[in-house]
Amino acid sequence: MNLHGDTICAPATSVGSGAVSMVRVSGPEAMAVVDRVVRFRAGTAAESPGYSLKFGEIAGLDEVLVSLFRAPHSYTGEDAAEICCHASPFIVSSLLDRLTDAGCRLAEPGEFTRRAFVNGKMDLAQAEAVADVIAASSAAQHRVAMNQLRGGYSAELRGLRKQLLELTALMELELDFSEEDVEFADRSRLRNLLDTACSHCRQLAESFRLGNAIRNGVPVAIVGAPNSGKSTLLNALLRDDRAIVSDVPGTTRDTVEETCVIEGVLFRFIDTAGIRTSEDEVERLGIERTFRKISEAEIVLGVIDAADPQEVVDEAVELILGKVDPKHQKLILLANKMDLHAGDDSHSGLDPESLTIEISAKTGQGLDELRSALVARAGLASASGTLVTNARHAAALRAAAASLFAVSDGLDRHLPPALLPEDLRAALASLGTITGEITTDEVLGEIFSRFCIGK
Amino acid sequence: MNLHGDTICAPATSVGSGAVSMVRVSGPEAMAVVDRVVRFRAGTAAESPGYSLKFGEIAGLDEVLVSLFRAPHSYTGEDAAEICCHASPFIVSSLLDRLTDAGCRLAEPGEFTRRAFVNGKMDLAQAEAVADVIAASSAAQHRVAMNQLRGGYSAELRGLRKQLLELTALMELELDFSEEDVEFADRSRLRNLLDTACSHCRQLAESFRLGNAIRNGVPVAIVGAPNSGKSTLLNALLRDDRAIVSDVPGTTRDTVEETCVIEGVLFRFIDTAGIRTSEDEVERLGIERTFRKISEAEIVLGVIDAADPQEVVDEAVELILGKVDPKHQKLILLANKMDLHAGDDSHSGLDPESLTIEISAKTGQGLDELRSALVARAGLASASGTLVTNARHAAALRAAAASLFAVSDGLDRHLPPALLPEDLRAALASLGTITGEITTDEVLGEIFSRFCIGK
Repeated sequence: MNLHGDTICAPATSVGSGAVSMVRVSGPEAMAVVDRVVRFRAGTAAESPGYSLKFGEIAGLDEVLVSLFRAPHSYTGEDAAEICCHASPFIVSSLLDRLTDAGCRLAEPGEFTRRAFVNGKMDLAQAEAVADVIAASSAAQHRVAMNQLRGGYSAELRGLRKQLLELTALMELELDFSEEDVEFADRSRLRNLLDTACSHCRQLAESFRLGNAIRNGVPVAIVGAPNSGKSTLLNALLRDDRAIVSDVPGTTRDTVEETCVIEGVLFRFIDTAGIRTSEDEVERLGIERTFRKISEAEIVLGVIDAADPQEVVDEAVELILGKVDPKHQKLILLANKMDLHAGDDSHSGLDPESLTIEISAKTGQGLDELRSALVARAGLASASGTLVTNARHAAALRAAAASLFAVSDGLDRHLPPALLPEDLRAALASLGTITGEITTDEVLGEIFSRFCIGK
Repeated sequence: MNLHGDTICAPATSVGSGAVSMVRVSGPEAMAVVDRVVRFRAGTAAESPGYSLKFGEIAGLDEVLVSLFRAPHSYTGEDAAEICCHASPFIVSSLLDRLTDAGCRLAEPGEFTRRAFVNGKMDLAQAEAVADVIAASSAAQHRVAMNQLRGGYSAELRGLRKQLLELTALMELELDFSEEDVEFADRSRLRNLLDTACSHCRQLAESFRLGNAIRNGVPVAIVGAPNSGKSTLLNALLRDDRAIVSDVPGTTRDTVEETCVIEGVLFRFIDTAGIRTSEDEVERLGIERTFRKISEAEIVLGVIDAADPQEVVDEAVELILGKVDPKHQKLILLANKMDLHAGDDSHSGLDPESLTIEISAKTGQGLDELRSALVARAGLASASGTLVTNARHAAALRAAAASLFAVSDGLDRHLPPALLPEDLRAALASLGTITGEITTDEVLGEIFSRFCIGK
């Protein structure tokens, strides 16, 4: 990919049923290319200042509105134009043909944002946030991605990096005098800085659990005996018919995952095969998969058929309780099919330790209460400060924390001070990969290839 | 629908995988609404001139680029803004919420274009062309729609209208003197004008057959005996697997329609049930439908299994010839399965009157020749002048022609001149409905409700 010297173009809006489509052009020849393709009512692109809006005509094709930007005041930091035409796939593809004939090349996925990164308009973490902002479907996702895009996260990493640079300086000072076998009074300060930085890295790395839940959805496993109404519940929550519902026990062989936004929080619901002992090989595989899925969930919805006899209910509750890890998971027991439940006895306290909600997935009874309980248990309302949402970043932060721990450990074990700066530099390098101070073409290629064309 | 006085907003780009989305705002309060929602880096929308491009921030939501337009120099003719944000459905829907909170209302489908019509920015035929331009998927469709959008068609209708007004003036002059029982020398001029206008209307109405073929695709029926390879041919032409292909004769029960663009011309291919005598009730219904479909086609592709014995081939050719109307339809005979055809004898002249092409739908042999033949027979290359593509317009033109014929007929039968102007006025009214000089809310509602939101 030639990052400098050439001019690129790509559609920036998705092709569909809209009224307007936009094609982006960026690069040193942007103005000249636009002037070759668009005849403006007055003047040319080349003689226009930045932030101009001009009406023009593409001969025989369309009338267009063109926004012109001058380096470095554009998204990419280069001269750039945004051409708005009628939202016809025919016009967009003809326009791209004319632009490439006029000296442009079609952009690779993410190439506009990659240029913005290369030209110092944003760091790597911000560039990655662009894709997250576009993909955000809940208020929480959007808030986290926007904070990252606007540089709040990058600023925190810069602070951390500054601490580590200070540490390195102190360490090298100690090193310079180490042959004199003098131990500095600053050793406690050094240790202090080290511990602070290390725990900061760990804390950020740990925020990934929450950040990931926000970005990809809070994982909620729906578990219960066969035919207890798990799929009906999932459909009621999603309000559509994604899962196959039938009265035959054991219908859901595969796990089904669906996301939906409740009160601004994205949930990822995992419907599972009914848990029971089965001799059917395929069903047993499904049940095993269920156990794995349950272990990955943050919240477990245990579905009980309230119309069952008491001893069956008790057995079902016990089976569910046995599969939940109370230290890391939150359990909500659901006494389902309350519409069929004739008796007077309440099911509201099936297990004294867990919240129990009486619902009917079929009639919708209790579902609002369930939704509120899910949002409360997602615990995202209390999420404050910086959240890491990117697995690449979390891995880099864990690596940085490990390097810092190695330094700390080295100090404890009175290793020769000359051995320590290497680990510090490794920690700095790990942090540098997040914001892109330290990066490789390969890493950049990997990151930007996941972008869409035109971004 | 309140057409004046309120300010409307809607997304103008389709929601999908793009980089940028655009939301449009139009109406007297457009600038005030934008200032309530967007904080600009410098200045306000209200104090900006038309054709300004400003960078701003929507608190906690996104950074946006806003294009500002001042009445009457905007699409709608009103004050208007186009807000470009990140292409996230969450951001777009949040932005729409904020705009409606700030005093906008969500626009009805087509309301921006309806306002452009009401404010005299375009006539009704041009407004209808907007939807056609967006929907155009072939060069020919695009050319016709663009001519209509740019007013070429409207100018022709205005010319016709002017002729009719001149006619009416002449007629009324004659009427003023009619009591004196003087016949004017201008009678032959009047007759001349009348005949010219009438044939112009007829010619435009007749162009609808071609215009419709361009807009909706040239209808091509693929017919032949069961298992002659019709569906395989359709798939080969479409290069995908839309029709179910099998070796069981009679697989295609229903007619299948698919469009595809060949050398800039849109074709609408109609795969049909194999024609043969059948005792299967369902299949017989399919064959009847086939006969109807064949009669609607402009071009008929008659598919023959070239591997069949000569007498079977002869019979198949005869069956196809019997179903084609040579006056209105063009027949291309295809000797298919040439890859299986072992003999030396050529099938290139199955019927001396019709073009025969030897093909193999399976290997692709002869398909390029077939494509060229289709484009040549579509006859769109010779299409010049104005083409009517809209059934509503064609009906209005036919009505105008009929009214003018009534005037002409009245002159022939020496009807009292007082009776003639009424028919002339009816012709004028018919033409007026096309460009919208004469229209009703009902007609406008009908036309614009077929637009998408945001146009």
